[in-house]
Amino acid sequence: VVNWFSRRKKRVDAPRLRPRTDDSSSTRVDFVDLTPDALSFLGQSAYVQLTIFENLSSAIASAPTTDAKERLSRAASLSLTKHLGLAGEIERLRKVPSTIMEPYAAAIDDFQRITLGADWFENVMTCLITAGMLDEFFARLAEGLPASTGRRVAEVYAGESGEELVAAELRRAIDANPRLAARLALWGRRLVGDTMLVARGALAKGHNIANDEARIEPVFSELIASHTRRMDSLGLTA
Amino acid sequence: VVNWFSRRKKRVDAPRLRPRTDDSSSTRVDFVDLTPDALSFLGQSAYVQLTIFENLSSAIASAPTTDAKERLSRAASLSLTKHLGLAGEIERLRKVPSTIMEPYAAAIDDFQRITLGADWFENVMTCLITAGMLDEFFARLAEGLPASTGRRVAEVYAGESGEELVAAELRRAIDANPRLAARLALWGRRLVGDTMLVARGALAKGHNIANDEARIEPVFSELIASHTRRMDSLGLTA
Repeated sequence: VVNWFSRRKKRVDAPRLRPRTDDSSSTRVDFVDLTPDALSFLGQSAYVQLTIFENLSSAIASAPTTDAKERLSRAASLSLTKHLGLAGEIERLRKVPSTIMEPYAAAIDDFQRITLGADWFENVMTCLITAGMLDEFFARLAEGLPASTGRRVAEVYAGESGEELVAAELRRAIDANPRLAARLALWGRRLVGDTMLVARGALAKGHNIANDEARIEPVFSELIASHTRRMDSLGLTA
Repeated sequence: VVNWFSRRKKRVDAPRLRPRTDDSSSTRVDFVDLTPDALSFLGQSAYVQLTIFENLSSAIASAPTTDAKERLSRAASLSLTKHLGLAGEIERLRKVPSTIMEPYAAAIDDFQRITLGADWFENVMTCLITAGMLDEFFARLAEGLPASTGRRVAEVYAGESGEELVAAELRRAIDANPRLAARLALWGRRLVGDTMLVARGALAKGHNIANDEARIEPVFSELIASHTRRMDSLGLTA
């Protein structure tokens, strides 16, 4: 696994104001200090989920078999349910979902564009990797939301996931054509950096960058660990 | 309204074996004689619904505003729910949905290709017109299915529809740019013929073509009447 945080780690080490033990014991709790206000959270997470749904939909439209179309449509449905759940939370706060999502649309559209694969297999890979990481990230970040919103958002993310359906599609493709493996492994690795940037962009900015980094790092390490497991489950090296 | 059946009417008139009164009083009941077996019905209706969903999804991906994206995603979700309901009926009959849909995929894919519009507005129009007509057609045809399957399929089609959401999108577009009206009216008219062919292709073949036509005609006239109302609601001439 590439260490995405080596540069940032150094920055954390420099202005050490609290003892290391304090940092490491409190980081998991502290991470939620970086949760933005509820509407920022919901605007971003809802638009990300809409993007995941769009990517799955376009993979359905270009699926090589009716079989794959059918399975991916179930995954798309689960993703759309998540999106509508998050949009529903925006409405509970008496706001219009599109208005709240709008400020984040351009950056997430860019993310969608740069994570567009060269063919169907890469696009399915994009669906698996970006949705896997970002759903885990937003679920984690939701722990810092106000209680009732946070509880319902947690339920949205705890709902049935299409991840296994999408992963099964890729395993099937790799079995049928083992030469795909190397290309998909490479693509999977490329997706991590861009996905991490979207996650990072969703965090509230703290006053002390060094403290922020100390809070972010353990969570991002967990995301990377999950990513590695996801790649392993396809027989690919992360 | 163009009369799509003028040619067929003549054929019906020729070999009149039953008195006209018989034909006209019994046609509404007789139409269900043309309902194919449950699996043929489900294979076609489920695949058509998947296609409607795909068209909506591609309209979401290319929507000009976040607002439009959001509204269309609700319509797409409703369409996907219908698809999954129909696929679920295939599974109840202990068959694999993709296997049952497969024989109809090529023809419906062709339909999708020829009903692809020149731009986003035409594509949204395609979603409105083809889904409107085909949902009404399959709901009507479902009356001839075996009782328990028929009842559940009727529930699928009676479920919430995204039609008004899609129509509202088009009304908004026409309000903003009245010059769109003429082009969308023309496109709406073009879609009818191709959509009718898909409907016609889903019917079981009877032994007596003349009788079949007499059964089909009143139902297709109803579809055309609904189409006219749909166009009216956009301020367009059918």
